[in-house]
Amino acid sequence: MLDFSTHLGDIATQLETRLDQLLPTGDDIAQAMRWGTLGGGKRLRGFLVVESAALFDVPRDQALNTAAAIECLHAYSLIHDDLPCMDDDDLRRGRPTVHRKWDEATAVLAGDALQTQAFTILSNATTHHDANVRIALVAALAAASGQAGMVGGQAMDIAAETAGRALNLDEIQLLQSLKTGALIQFSARAGAILGQADAQAHAALTAYADALGVAFQIRDDLLDVDGDEATAGKALHKDAQAGKATYVSLLGVDGARAKADSLVEQAITALRPFGADASALADAARYTLARNT
Amino acid sequence: MLDFSTHLGDIATQLETRLDQLLPTGDDIAQAMRWGTLGGGKRLRGFLVVESAALFDVPRDQALNTAAAIECLHAYSLIHDDLPCMDDDDLRRGRPTVHRKWDEATAVLAGDALQTQAFTILSNATTHHDANVRIALVAALAAASGQAGMVGGQAMDIAAETAGRALNLDEIQLLQSLKTGALIQFSARAGAILGQADAQAHAALTAYADALGVAFQIRDDLLDVDGDEATAGKALHKDAQAGKATYVSLLGVDGARAKADSLVEQAITALRPFGADASALADAARYTLARNT
Repeated sequence: MLDFSTHLGDIATQLETRLDQLLPTGDDIAQAMRWGTLGGGKRLRGFLVVESAALFDVPRDQALNTAAAIECLHAYSLIHDDLPCMDDDDLRRGRPTVHRKWDEATAVLAGDALQTQAFTILSNATTHHDANVRIALVAALAAASGQAGMVGGQAMDIAAETAGRALNLDEIQLLQSLKTGALIQFSARAGAILGQADAQAHAALTAYADALGVAFQIRDDLLDVDGDEATAGKALHKDAQAGKATYVSLLGVDGARAKADSLVEQAITALRPFGADASALADAARYTLARNT
Repeated sequence: MLDFSTHLGDIATQLETRLDQLLPTGDDIAQAMRWGTLGGGKRLRGFLVVESAALFDVPRDQALNTAAAIECLHAYSLIHDDLPCMDDDDLRRGRPTVHRKWDEATAVLAGDALQTQAFTILSNATTHHDANVRIALVAALAAASGQAGMVGGQAMDIAAETAGRALNLDEIQLLQSLKTGALIQFSARAGAILGQADAQAHAALTAYADALGVAFQIRDDLLDVDGDEATAGKALHKDAQAGKATYVSLLGVDGARAKADSLVEQAITALRPFGADASALADAARYTLARNT
């Protein structure tokens, strides 16, 4: 895993540089956009874009724009999710959340502008020379993040919490497939879109991403139970406190670990058509189980 | 003006039908998206799209998609602007605002999803058969609504309020050109994008929209002073209470009226290259002075 961590870190560094170039500078909103986007995070989504694009020989320099767009979209969702009316979190990646460092209005607007920024980046000709590819990226990102995707999942989450009702396993799976799975799936499919790959490649990357997404979420739930807050850089043990159903509360720690193991195998199997070219993506799947943050 | 009101109303009705078809149904977020978008409003932005598109013989049925996208974007901005941490408004178009009818989390998410919905609509092939046109619309809408556009203007507005400092005329003009002007400019230019018109046509519509946008804002400021809350369907006299600088506080009622008159003339002059074809757009400019809501 050491080699993989280095590789993940290398791409994260390149992505950080690209985000720094693409994000605006200036007023409070620009600064808050940077605060919420730059300075850390595993950049798993960006990594999936870059590595899936590499399967189809898309130059990394080109794939980094799309990776930056998904990271802007992800950062917007975190800024809004951290708001007092949502998860009410004070800490993110070990630093004050945007509404704590500035105020709620700035956090709402910075999140709004980061969503827009994602579409600005995707629509730019430097992202891909072919307008058909760029518009396909826009359509796919919008589908993954809107009411029938990420936002729909966030709404299910809040509705369950408001109703004070613990969800069952089917409901958790649906919720997570929307809340986090949809953007992870977009990230892995983005390479196939950029590479104008065939339907079989799209299907393989979708199967990979869907299994990876669930494994990733299970690891998150496990970290919430046995993780270290200083390492994670955010508040933990919130699920149990809130009486929230998670993969761990429903399957137990051992059951959840076993399910994550099997999903990682499933994700790796889905990559078979790509052979050794997909080794970095396979490592990413293994890494989801090993990570501590 | 009676004929124009009928014409504006006809397009608004068609647009309402199109929005009803394009907006999702189902969960609370979908319902809140509909609440914030459907059921009224003058639809000035949508009207500008439809009428500017008509100059270049773009079929109305096609232009209505782009008009719907801008109305989704506008509705998202109103839902977030009404939040307690922003303008804290209880009433919009005579009905409870989204966070009053549901709650703040639903309002944040419904606004987020409506922004996404605007890009979903623009990226769809039914909006225009040519991907180059669709991606140009995405890029233009993102530029108009992001940190360097509408959101930037909202941030300036809040910053001035937080600092308790009344802005001067130059600052007000900059703020309004971003906060409301950028989307109005996009709306009028959208027809030229859809019609793949030349640079001269783009420039003429931009000049028209910029003058119209300021006239529209001055009329808003005048309505805040002498308007009727029941007719307006929202709280008025908020500017004076908040000690906010407006065109009226800076120019006086008569000075503001004179400036609006001259801007409407300017807007109509900009339309000259289009001759009689642009009579509906010219009427729209005259209408901004006559409107009571």
